[in-house]
Amino acid sequence: MHTRALVNGDPTSRVEVWDRGFQYGDGVFTTLRVRSGIPLFLDHHLARLERDCRRLALPFPNTPGLIREVRSLCEIWPEGVLKVLLTRGGGGRGYRCPDRVQGTRVLSMHPVPDYPPTIYEHGVEVRFCHTRLGINPSLAGIKHLNRLEQVLARAEWSGTDIHEGLMLDVEGWVVEGTMTNLFLVLGETLHTPLLDRCGVAGVMRSLVLKAAAELGLPSQERRLRPEDLEAAEELFLTNSVIGIWPVRRLAAKTYRIGPVTREISRWVAKKIQEESVARYGA
Amino acid sequence: MHTRALVNGDPTSRVEVWDRGFQYGDGVFTTLRVRSGIPLFLDHHLARLERDCRRLALPFPNTPGLIREVRSLCEIWPEGVLKVLLTRGGGGRGYRCPDRVQGTRVLSMHPVPDYPPTIYEHGVEVRFCHTRLGINPSLAGIKHLNRLEQVLARAEWSGTDIHEGLMLDVEGWVVEGTMTNLFLVLGETLHTPLLDRCGVAGVMRSLVLKAAAELGLPSQERRLRPEDLEAAEELFLTNSVIGIWPVRRLAAKTYRIGPVTREISRWVAKKIQEESVARYGA
Repeated sequence: MHTRALVNGDPTSRVEVWDRGFQYGDGVFTTLRVRSGIPLFLDHHLARLERDCRRLALPFPNTPGLIREVRSLCEIWPEGVLKVLLTRGGGGRGYRCPDRVQGTRVLSMHPVPDYPPTIYEHGVEVRFCHTRLGINPSLAGIKHLNRLEQVLARAEWSGTDIHEGLMLDVEGWVVEGTMTNLFLVLGETLHTPLLDRCGVAGVMRSLVLKAAAELGLPSQERRLRPEDLEAAEELFLTNSVIGIWPVRRLAAKTYRIGPVTREISRWVAKKIQEESVARYGA
Repeated sequence: MHTRALVNGDPTSRVEVWDRGFQYGDGVFTTLRVRSGIPLFLDHHLARLERDCRRLALPFPNTPGLIREVRSLCEIWPEGVLKVLLTRGGGGRGYRCPDRVQGTRVLSMHPVPDYPPTIYEHGVEVRFCHTRLGINPSLAGIKHLNRLEQVLARAEWSGTDIHEGLMLDVEGWVVEGTMTNLFLVLGETLHTPLLDRCGVAGVMRSLVLKAAAELGLPSQERRLRPEDLEAAEELFLTNSVIGIWPVRRLAAKTYRIGPVTREISRWVAKKIQEESVARYGA
């Protein structure tokens, strides 16, 4: 079997325990869909990784080299989920970073989750989680490796009836799903929670905001209460692996899969189509 | 050279990248001083690890086996710092935990930090960090692997003049140092920050609270403002590797190394002495 992972370019699935990613969660990651050998929205993912690295003063690897590694894995595994994980590497005493940082980069390929394809037509069922998100502006928006809150939230339910759990921050504002960003349609406007104090600014989330702008749909990032979700006409979830999941049910309320959700979904599907053409054309 | 690490009992310093400790910081750890082959306050550290594991629903390894591994490392490296790190192990899709969890345990031995021994007589210099601690009761007190806040705070200064940085939470309450707990003497009472919303409940912190009780010294866990620190007569920092560090200076204020700090330090030194006798006697 081919290895499904590259660590600093080497086909191995092991890292040193001294790695600061393992010791402190001192790193960032991104997860993207590979379809017919094409890593979808790769440039967006690399841009986000680089922005996250800058915020944490993590070294960002040489981009052409990183892209070569991505392509080599996508050739072997043309269908899957690619995770790119970057850490500060080894060394340093305790929390202090070493003077010369040599980051660790891990690329790994994973099977596509086997959600039923009917999800996109019928929507998903969602719950509220008890686990709250802590508030910390210095880490807000970053897809970093400190993900215990998500692990605890995801452990609150099992089974396949519930597809996602929504998380509030410790003050009671709705922020996101455990693995997705959240959008809702209220009146004529698309709303999504502000991520200035916690949450992960997903690549698909920024694409949806771009879609809204292109489609002439007013959109707003703001603080949202559970009551706002109850008042919403449409609700959907996004991430780079699933794309757009319409929400059929949240707690006691049922939603229809409305025109905005459908229009955004079509826009995203078209972008994915364009990605494929662009890559094959290149 | 002997390996300085054991992973699930094997002499290796490598773990799988799939390990949830590496992917999500899904684990806990403890760090303790080994002196003349004796892992100091090992029972306290194991009790804290077990408590932390319970809070995160992490598997806790067989205790006698774990103690055997600790002793085997302490025989080879009788002077050092031992880190015991436990993760949820591999597996699970995304944040969801696998149905059958097989944890990973990593024991590693590190050199004793080379702080000048005069620190205990003269005290240390301390600063306030800009990086804040997020508030999240569900993780508060746990020595888990999500430590980016500490990494960012510790990166705020370099050089050896400043020994530690104090961290406030996002609301402005003083919580702890980047790697230490904090105590202060105000009037006749020993105060230490409440750790119900963030912070790490250190083993040495709990020993100091025990010392206060035994010595008939009133003590209180409460919310503390930077102004309380300025009003304090004595200030000291604790962790299991350094023991008690008197604070000589914090920001603009100078402190004396007072009688309470000295009395607590003597109590801890005596306990360490007793640990040695008890182990040798056993």
